[in-house]
Amino acid sequence: MLIGKKGEAKTAIETADANSITVRGKDLCNEVMGHNSIGEFFFLHLTGRQPTSDQAFFMDVLVVALAEHGLTPSVQAARMTLAAAPEALQGAVAAGLLGVGSVILGSADVCGDMLDDAAARVEGGETAEAAALAIAHEYKAAGRFIPGFGHPIHHPVDPRAVRILQLAEERGVSGRYVNALRAFPDAVAEVWGKTLPMNLQGPMAAVLLDLDYPKAAIRGIPILARTVGLIGHLNEETERPIGFLLAHHGEEAIEYDGN
Amino acid sequence: MLIGKKGEAKTAIETADANSITVRGKDLCNEVMGHNSIGEFFFLHLTGRQPTSDQAFFMDVLVVALAEHGLTPSVQAARMTLAAAPEALQGAVAAGLLGVGSVILGSADVCGDMLDDAAARVEGGETAEAAALAIAHEYKAAGRFIPGFGHPIHHPVDPRAVRILQLAEERGVSGRYVNALRAFPDAVAEVWGKTLPMNLQGPMAAVLLDLDYPKAAIRGIPILARTVGLIGHLNEETERPIGFLLAHHGEEAIEYDGN
Amino acid sequence: MLIGKKGEAKTAIETADANSITVRGKDLCNEVMGHNSIGEFFFLHLTGRQPTSDQAFFMDVLVVALAEHGLTPSVQAARMTLAAAPEALQGAVAAGLLGVGSVILGSADVCGDMLDDAAARVEGGETAEAAALAIAHEYKAAGRFIPGFGHPIHHPVDPRAVRILQLAEERGVSGRYVNALRAFPDAVAEVWGKTLPMNLQGPMAAVLLDLDYPKAAIRGIPILARTVGLIGHLNEETERPIGFLLAHHGEEAIEYDGN
Amino acid sequence: MLIGKKGEAKTAIETADANSITVRGKDLCNEVMGHNSIGEFFFLHLTGRQPTSDQAFFMDVLVVALAEHGLTPSVQAARMTLAAAPEALQGAVAAGLLGVGSVILGSADVCGDMLDDAAARVEGGETAEAAALAIAHEYKAAGRFIPGFGHPIHHPVDPRAVRILQLAEERGVSGRYVNALRAFPDAVAEVWGKTLPMNLQGPMAAVLLDLDYPKAAIRGIPILARTVGLIGHLNEETERPIGFLLAHHGEEAIEYDGN
Repeated sequence: MLIGKKGEAKTAIETADANSITVRGKDLCNEVMGHNSIGEFFFLHLTGRQPTSDQAFFMDVLVVALAEHGLTPSVQAARMTLAAAPEALQGAVAAGLLGVGSVILGSADVCGDMLDDAAARVEGGETAEAAALAIAHEYKAAGRFIPGFGHPIHHPVDPRAVRILQLAEERGVSGRYVNALRAFPDAVAEVWGKTLPMNLQGPMAAVLLDLDYPKAAIRGIPILARTVGLIGHLNEETERPIGFLLAHHGEEAIEYDGN
Repeated sequence: MLIGKKGEAKTAIETADANSITVRGKDLCNEVMGHNSIGEFFFLHLTGRQPTSDQAFFMDVLVVALAEHGLTPSVQAARMTLAAAPEALQGAVAAGLLGVGSVILGSADVCGDMLDDAAARVEGGETAEAAALAIAHEYKAAGRFIPGFGHPIHHPVDPRAVRILQLAEERGVSGRYVNALRAFPDAVAEVWGKTLPMNLQGPMAAVLLDLDYPKAAIRGIPILARTVGLIGHLNEETERPIGFLLAHHGEEAIEYDGN
Repeated sequence: MLIGKKGEAKTAIETADANSITVRGKDLCNEVMGHNSIGEFFFLHLTGRQPTSDQAFFMDVLVVALAEHGLTPSVQAARMTLAAAPEALQGAVAAGLLGVGSVILGSADVCGDMLDDAAARVEGGETAEAAALAIAHEYKAAGRFIPGFGHPIHHPVDPRAVRILQLAEERGVSGRYVNALRAFPDAVAEVWGKTLPMNLQGPMAAVLLDLDYPKAAIRGIPILARTVGLIGHLNEETERPIGFLLAHHGEEAIEYDGN
Repeated sequence: MLIGKKGEAKTAIETADANSITVRGKDLCNEVMGHNSIGEFFFLHLTGRQPTSDQAFFMDVLVVALAEHGLTPSVQAARMTLAAAPEALQGAVAAGLLGVGSVILGSADVCGDMLDDAAARVEGGETAEAAALAIAHEYKAAGRFIPGFGHPIHHPVDPRAVRILQLAEERGVSGRYVNALRAFPDAVAEVWGKTLPMNLQGPMAAVLLDLDYPKAAIRGIPILARTVGLIGHLNEETERPIGFLLAHHGEEAIEYDGN
């Protein structure tokens, strides 16, 4: 099927010749290798700009914060996959990444939209507290969860969320988004009538937006982070396999109720 | 199917409670976030050890070297996938990673085995030159390609290979593997009767082995690196789509010769 | 992360003991193997009901119609992936399936919704022609493409669409959805001012709905069909490799316009 | 990277023009749709030949036999993936297929090689019993598992294996491979000193080879079969989600033994 449209195709990312490789206008070998960390390169590759030191610092903070959270469904899927198909490490990593979707790591961009709304209200004259409270009421009235709140094990707070905000304060990078976010925990507690832990999606979105990261980073950083985590788990799986044991426990727990 | 074996299942990577997350024995929030770069965390997560400054430095160098090489088959596969299924960025990244297999980025571990062989011969009394020449003759006699040589566009050398070895020299980290590798380009030229470019697989393997990285890093680093590169390309795909154009050019080039 | 909710987990699909396997209440070995075709089994497995002969017949028709359409982006992605990672056939199939998303094969359920709307208007007293025309005007006014129309190579009709409707007529299975669909080509031509080919998404959706297939079949059948097609292409790739040639043509067509 | 070789690229699978689609030399709409079942089409697409009625019959038998075996690791991985990323059914199917690798469904081709060896010995003058016994001794002496024997729940036989062989007998399709296989259960019991259940890999390989299927079918049929099974499970997952429950049970079973 000639699904492809005819036309010119361009990329601004890379070009190469026999002697050199150019990435985003820089000579890869002499200007990037040995000069840029993984996080700096990720930012450069994504945006075409060299990150500031704050942008680079939080790149590292956020990937490290998201990379590892135990035997998550994604990690279990990846370890089961490697146990069944050990010939292809890349397949097991792919299986794990396929679970980095809208439910588990995908709410940061929704948080971003919510914070954008809140910040605009503050700039329109409301206090941050009033803006957060109004938005929380709107979500509650619409029967929706408030994005960025709730966590299966961390109570009353997700320590990673606290730490990200603390680092934002220390580095002086908090701006309209972080400031808008700070009013939400109390607003959510008031509207829902109980304390819900703020998870790390909100602080991640807020810091990325205050630091002028592109929107794409909000989706890309969790994927990069989980790749780091999956490779470590899959290495452990080759040394101390538990993929089939995990499957066994899941399987034993299931009851058949068909005809 | 009760494929899972019964038994105890253990992990040494992570544990968490309501207030804290422990990764490889360290408090994630207070001892790792804000202290470790992505590369340092990758090493820690994979090995349980904090990297030396040289180990961390070359982690960055190698991921940066491998992350981006233009419209490779993997990148094309990923961009076509996103064009067809834009609802799932993670699926397009996964499609790209599925091509990080034995042909394109998988020869570094084979290089590692060859260098191990060469280094052992040197320690047994041969010169590095004699060891490389003997091994090159053995591969040639067996009708095999010599791993780590040959590149579709870089001639007479792959500039990334040169740069990695230069950085190894500058940092004083060359050991038995890098030294064994240095004798190969001349040996290969002599046995094959022409200069073949040394690509980056050999220097990558040699440096990782001299720096005492675990074997798993040799497979994991290219996967991590390509994830970085894929996210950037997929971001560009959302802004300036070429996935279907690429498919169009491929499709036009194909001739049907069935009945 | 304890993402998993506690609670009972049930399945109605399968149970097994040492001597037998029960699928959807039937003894797999004695009641299904040797009795059911792939299409019949797909229906049984999905719904828990044995298909009627018409349901089984169109299962075959639709999978066969969708399985193969040349070097589509998905097929190219799969062939490039196998060329790069020949150790894992399953990885190349997976890479191809990851492109069976909302753009290429995902509009059948949107067609279904549109046909549902049209059929309801007909039952409310409009003629099929008037209903189709009104809906076409609504899409046009909203600046939306009409689902199920347009094809890169098939003009003025997609022959598969014609054939599906012809078979529906011959078998006497056309009902409210097929009847609603028949009025759309003229309505679309009138509203858009030119003939747009009806592709196979509309007839597929209409027949499945008239035959009382579950909604899940509309998404599942294209995935099953493409798996069939991908396996054949990947078999050809092992015998006559073109994956890297396809990549080459794509790559040559790209121009770098970065700094 | 210009990884692609230049040169002509050909396919014998499909070509199309504005009015028609040709698959393997046949007019898809008029000669295939409405005439061929999924299994017949799979064979035609893979080989370029129309299957005999026996080849078509066993295509159905084998896909049906392999499609469903409960909450296997692959199914669990797929269901966890859909729970985490419900926006992409294709991603969850892909995650499940990535586990159809060398450990779980990949031994049929190894069985095929073993049966080829046995059949050659029989044609060289040995009895089938002697050939099987000699081969079993060779595997045992080499410390290897014998392919096609052993199953986690089915004892003393896998009922699907019995059924496949029974159908082969009824249809009169048993040849050199099935005959060679029949001697193995006793040989294995003698050499290993206990009855090991013959699983369905051996009968599948034997029947496919006796029916002159291409080697590619041995790898492709399990992938096709599992796609059928995965779609059914993922449909159930959308209606009665258990993906996170499965993950929860796995997670609870794990003990941390890091520092």
